[in-house]
Amino acid sequence: MARVVVLGAGMMGTALCTPIADAGHAVHLVGTHLDDAWIDAMKRDRVHPRLGVPLPERVTPHMLADLPEVIRGADFIGVGVSSAGVEWAASALAPFLRPDLPLIAVTKGLAEVAPGELRVLPDVFRDALPEPLRSTVFPGAIGGPCIAGEIARRVPTAVVFTGRNPDHLRALAAAFSTPYYHVRTSTDLVGVEVCAALKNAYAVAIGIGAGMHERAGGKPAPVAFHNFEAAIFAQSCIEMDLVVRALGGLPSQVPGLPGAGDLFVTCSGGRSSRLGRLLGLGHPFQEARQLMASDTLESADLVRVLGGALDRLSDAGLLPPGGLPLMRHLYEVIVLERSLDMPFQLFFQDHRP
Amino acid sequence: MARVVVLGAGMMGTALCTPIADAGHAVHLVGTHLDDAWIDAMKRDRVHPRLGVPLPERVTPHMLADLPEVIRGADFIGVGVSSAGVEWAASALAPFLRPDLPLIAVTKGLAEVAPGELRVLPDVFRDALPEPLRSTVFPGAIGGPCIAGEIARRVPTAVVFTGRNPDHLRALAAAFSTPYYHVRTSTDLVGVEVCAALKNAYAVAIGIGAGMHERAGGKPAPVAFHNFEAAIFAQSCIEMDLVVRALGGLPSQVPGLPGAGDLFVTCSGGRSSRLGRLLGLGHPFQEARQLMASDTLESADLVRVLGGALDRLSDAGLLPPGGLPLMRHLYEVIVLERSLDMPFQLFFQDHRP
Repeated sequence: MARVVVLGAGMMGTALCTPIADAGHAVHLVGTHLDDAWIDAMKRDRVHPRLGVPLPERVTPHMLADLPEVIRGADFIGVGVSSAGVEWAASALAPFLRPDLPLIAVTKGLAEVAPGELRVLPDVFRDALPEPLRSTVFPGAIGGPCIAGEIARRVPTAVVFTGRNPDHLRALAAAFSTPYYHVRTSTDLVGVEVCAALKNAYAVAIGIGAGMHERAGGKPAPVAFHNFEAAIFAQSCIEMDLVVRALGGLPSQVPGLPGAGDLFVTCSGGRSSRLGRLLGLGHPFQEARQLMASDTLESADLVRVLGGALDRLSDAGLLPPGGLPLMRHLYEVIVLERSLDMPFQLFFQDHRP
Repeated sequence: MARVVVLGAGMMGTALCTPIADAGHAVHLVGTHLDDAWIDAMKRDRVHPRLGVPLPERVTPHMLADLPEVIRGADFIGVGVSSAGVEWAASALAPFLRPDLPLIAVTKGLAEVAPGELRVLPDVFRDALPEPLRSTVFPGAIGGPCIAGEIARRVPTAVVFTGRNPDHLRALAAAFSTPYYHVRTSTDLVGVEVCAALKNAYAVAIGIGAGMHERAGGKPAPVAFHNFEAAIFAQSCIEMDLVVRALGGLPSQVPGLPGAGDLFVTCSGGRSSRLGRLLGLGHPFQEARQLMASDTLESADLVRVLGGALDRLSDAGLLPPGGLPLMRHLYEVIVLERSLDMPFQLFFQDHRP
């Protein structure tokens, strides 16, 4: 039995505790300063209010103030903060990190750290550490299909633990695997994490089909706008592949768990799908934004970062000029607030074997 | 305005007439000997009973006996027969074919023409032609997302016309494109058609998740068995990629329209999904077969052909020994009638970059 500390008690951080506890470990779930209400609720009745299922017995919730005490003697660290909290998490954990302490995060996203230079979040986390940790700690991350509510309910899935320290990945995979939580490992951190970041944005594009169908008076049915959605799904895969290669990842991620697999699951009704539906119904982005005022839209953040960097990536020779017409159109709709008009005629131009 | 003859008045053959007619051509839809009732209905009220939408004005339905007269002067031939009818269609059309008459089929499947030698259906069609046609006619095929009911309703999509005569593909694409039916071309006939054939079988596997969720008392919802489905979707993409390469196609098809795109749309509630759901609910295959007695299950035929040939393909060095654990399990469940027990532990072994 190992001692595992998970920092961040949102849905995903909390859900991750379930397979870890089921694998036989003592899990200490520490909320950030934004999670006090959730930690209170879990201390009181052992249920995360957004997940709605009981915490396993071996999980103990804690307020942030307990972190220094709880983290003493930890064998593994999990990070469950949102993309906005990555640098905060790095500074909060830095006093306790060591090169031999495996760390893995569920956070997904891309940051433009210099003009035309995009970085995946585990590297942003690492850059935020002081030396010598920055050179010796290799934060990992989790890719693949991970709907939090399903992981907390022990629905079978397979995920990818990725990072630059293969020994840590093997140790984490061996420790966290259960009969329903199948873990594979990959040292292609960039490939896995680019897919993990982009899928939210592309799921918005695919979700537009449901809104258009509804706007045309249709109900959910086998005959709807599925051809439309599928064509956009395919264009999404092609564009993900181009970005993975541009940033130095392996293209084989796209037809696998981190790419097509995670994109598929992200189309099944979460926030990104709901935003897409609102756009397809005809709401301009700002209206849709207001209708989802209580939701964090990581998809829109990603479109802002990647869409805004496309020309710089092309200038640097990393992407074909004018490439990624779907991501460009998402940028037009979400950032420039132009009308939706899916540019099918530009799709599949980069893909004519 | 060209003259186009489509042979086969099933849902897909009939639906294909809509974009062709909308592109400005005169379309003659000729039923096979199995389609008499549908042709009768369309002659009477201009609606295909299974599609439920009116035929465009420029489409004229005909009984099979009219074929010799109708086909005179045709500029393009479409073939809309089922996979079981490919050889029949070749012999019915042979008297009228010429090397300069482009022909394209919607039929999808694989046939084992000799032990361990799998062939895509356009090649089976061609092999069934007499010489010299067999050496001079290059039948094309259509891949990508094509739910017939949506094409007949003009829902936007993008498809791939594939074949070995690039001039014919260009001519067909130019003639059949409309503002909602976007056509790309590819001379990678094997890659496109392997994806088109396999997607039905893999959609069964993905559909199992919905049945398992329902069996556990769940309703359709954003939290269901989506992680499970997505992991199987990813494994499906990986296996499709292996088969495409084994048979000589280009792997770039999988993260595109013919692979992930068409697989995505096939998971949206058609026959393959329904068969998967019944298996996930706990019905043995033969029970599920009876519950879908009125449906042609091309998915099951594909599993029989490909699953049965796997060891021979491995022996020939075309596939890794023991590879394709998901297709093997489908073979166990559908052909050998064993119990469903998804072998997650065997997945993603071929895919560890």
